[in-house]
Amino acid sequence: MQHHEVDIDSFTAGDTDRLTAGEVLAGYLHARAGDFLRALRMYGESGSDTAAAEAAARTLRGAARRIGGGLHTFRPLLDPAWADQLRTELGWLSGTLAQEHACTGRLHRLLGALARLSGATVTPAVASAATVASASAAAVASRTDGSPEGPPPGTLTVGASRAGALLDRQLTLARTRAHSAALQALGSSRFHAVADAVAVLASEVPLSPLAGAPAVEVLAGPSENTERQLLDAVAALPLARAAHPYNAEALVHGLATASEGEAQDAPWHHVRQLLRLHRYAQEVWSAGGAPDPTLLGAGQALDRHRDAAEAAAAAANAARTPRIAPATAYALGVLHADQRLEVEAARFAFQQVWQRAAATAP
Amino acid sequence: MQHHEVDIDSFTAGDTDRLTAGEVLAGYLHARAGDFLRALRMYGESGSDTAAAEAAARTLRGAARRIGGGLHTFRPLLDPAWADQLRTELGWLSGTLAQEHACTGRLHRLLGALARLSGATVTPAVASAATVASASAAAVASRTDGSPEGPPPGTLTVGASRAGALLDRQLTLARTRAHSAALQALGSSRFHAVADAVAVLASEVPLSPLAGAPAVEVLAGPSENTERQLLDAVAALPLARAAHPYNAEALVHGLATASEGEAQDAPWHHVRQLLRLHRYAQEVWSAGGAPDPTLLGAGQALDRHRDAAEAAAAAANAARTPRIAPATAYALGVLHADQRLEVEAARFAFQQVWQRAAATAP
Repeated sequence: MQHHEVDIDSFTAGDTDRLTAGEVLAGYLHARAGDFLRALRMYGESGSDTAAAEAAARTLRGAARRIGGGLHTFRPLLDPAWADQLRTELGWLSGTLAQEHACTGRLHRLLGALARLSGATVTPAVASAATVASASAAAVASRTDGSPEGPPPGTLTVGASRAGALLDRQLTLARTRAHSAALQALGSSRFHAVADAVAVLASEVPLSPLAGAPAVEVLAGPSENTERQLLDAVAALPLARAAHPYNAEALVHGLATASEGEAQDAPWHHVRQLLRLHRYAQEVWSAGGAPDPTLLGAGQALDRHRDAAEAAAAAANAARTPRIAPATAYALGVLHADQRLEVEAARFAFQQVWQRAAATAP
Repeated sequence: MQHHEVDIDSFTAGDTDRLTAGEVLAGYLHARAGDFLRALRMYGESGSDTAAAEAAARTLRGAARRIGGGLHTFRPLLDPAWADQLRTELGWLSGTLAQEHACTGRLHRLLGALARLSGATVTPAVASAATVASASAAAVASRTDGSPEGPPPGTLTVGASRAGALLDRQLTLARTRAHSAALQALGSSRFHAVADAVAVLASEVPLSPLAGAPAVEVLAGPSENTERQLLDAVAALPLARAAHPYNAEALVHGLATASEGEAQDAPWHHVRQLLRLHRYAQEVWSAGGAPDPTLLGAGQALDRHRDAAEAAAAAANAARTPRIAPATAYALGVLHADQRLEVEAARFAFQQVWQRAAATAP
């Protein structure tokens, strides 16, 4: 094993001409390990400040994902057994920490959609169960005041309110469980072992002999492998179909079994992960430069794809709750379809970003 | 009143230079009245041949709409009291005859959508309640045979099957009622009065003094009025929004009251009617020439808009049936949203046809 120290902030892309691959990679991993340790300290000091705790957890997850990505992409330049083991542990950590955030986001997304579907002018970001309930109450009130030729009794709007309350209960419970799991994980000996490994990584990186070669000679190969996997995975996506708006593809299994819907989404989720790996690999090269706007835009579209797919699944899942009223189930059906439409819209957006980049590529 | 006879098939656009407006208009109305009377005879002779009866009813409706359109657009060239009265009666007749056909189409559309949403490879045209039920039974069977890690119990696919059966019952009942109403209408003294008026129209048209002027001088004015109304109504549509795919506009009131959804659709339905009036007015001029492809394409998009909006309303209505299972209500919610998505897709299609025509206009 060789030990390397390099200040990531002090070199630019041009410097890679003079540095070894190990120096460039170690510089990146040192910096991310530093982010990880600072975020961990911030998290410990956040106390009852939930906003600070959330920000710290986000930085911690981002650093863990970037270190894991570096260990994956540049595995030939590293001690492979060490890299595989730490990467598995970082994956466990960032996955565990991501759950609480995901539950919060999913609840906001679903309550925002319910408000929108009920004709309330509430933006998803500020929607809450209370907003949906009061919008619904206002709708009922305006209906009672209305003319005798007015609409039929508003069971469906009552349904939206009940569906919101049901989702609020279920996702708040899931979030509480995820929060407990995250706290338990952060107090575990497994976590302390990860934190210790990252602390070591902040000063030394176990490199393979190949890492002694100049960066310009051996750093590109692993990056290009990741990029090739990404391009192959994108080529396998049904992009021609996604380019045609309103193809109704995402709802094809809207009433079929959950596993069929998931099978349809899987290739897109896979591309999302490869896109992220590719973006992280570019960070190693670009040393703090601006990220590629195509990768960012495509990644945002696929984040939205994932969020909408999971929200749609949560609505379908809530509809399986025993003894719910038909009006509640109806509202959950509309909500499920609405989120599957979002899935389709996200695929369209991804296709647009990707084709535009392909058209302007040199 | 003046009486005119002209053979519509014997003159082309160039002939309008030499003919009076009354001759051109009377020629068109004579021909459509002939269509009406032939279709009526075919309908009476169709007996138990439902395909022949349907074809005859379609021709009858088309002829009634065209005569009514001519009476509306070219009212200044006609005896106005007579034109208004006959137009009202023709509207009543074509509206009554259209109901049965609409119920059949709506049922096919909804059962086809349910099959598609259940992942069955059934085209809407051949879908039936039996197909949905058997596709669903096959899905349940394959699930029972599956591995223990398979999907959760298929309550939602059962829901699709039950929703299909419920819609089948409700829309078949509505169709039977519409059929009885049509038969009753065709046997009524009110209908015989319309048929008599059309029979007179086949040989003579009550024209106003203005109709004596050359066609080139006075036929354009009323046509242009209709076209101007159409262009104004299209200009008032939210086309910029419709041009942006996946704007989620059509679902904005997906869980609100029915009347709010209808208010949103009304301007599009209005344009659909004006488009048809404009197309019929062009027929008077073109004397059997090919219809304008833009008007045809735009009209087809708005027919689809109307059909999807009515199917979505039927699904929402079925969900208000007392004592239905939550799984049935959920499937109806997904189905409602799916058809509202079709509404949005139809607006997008209309916008595409219209903008393309505007871009290539001289």
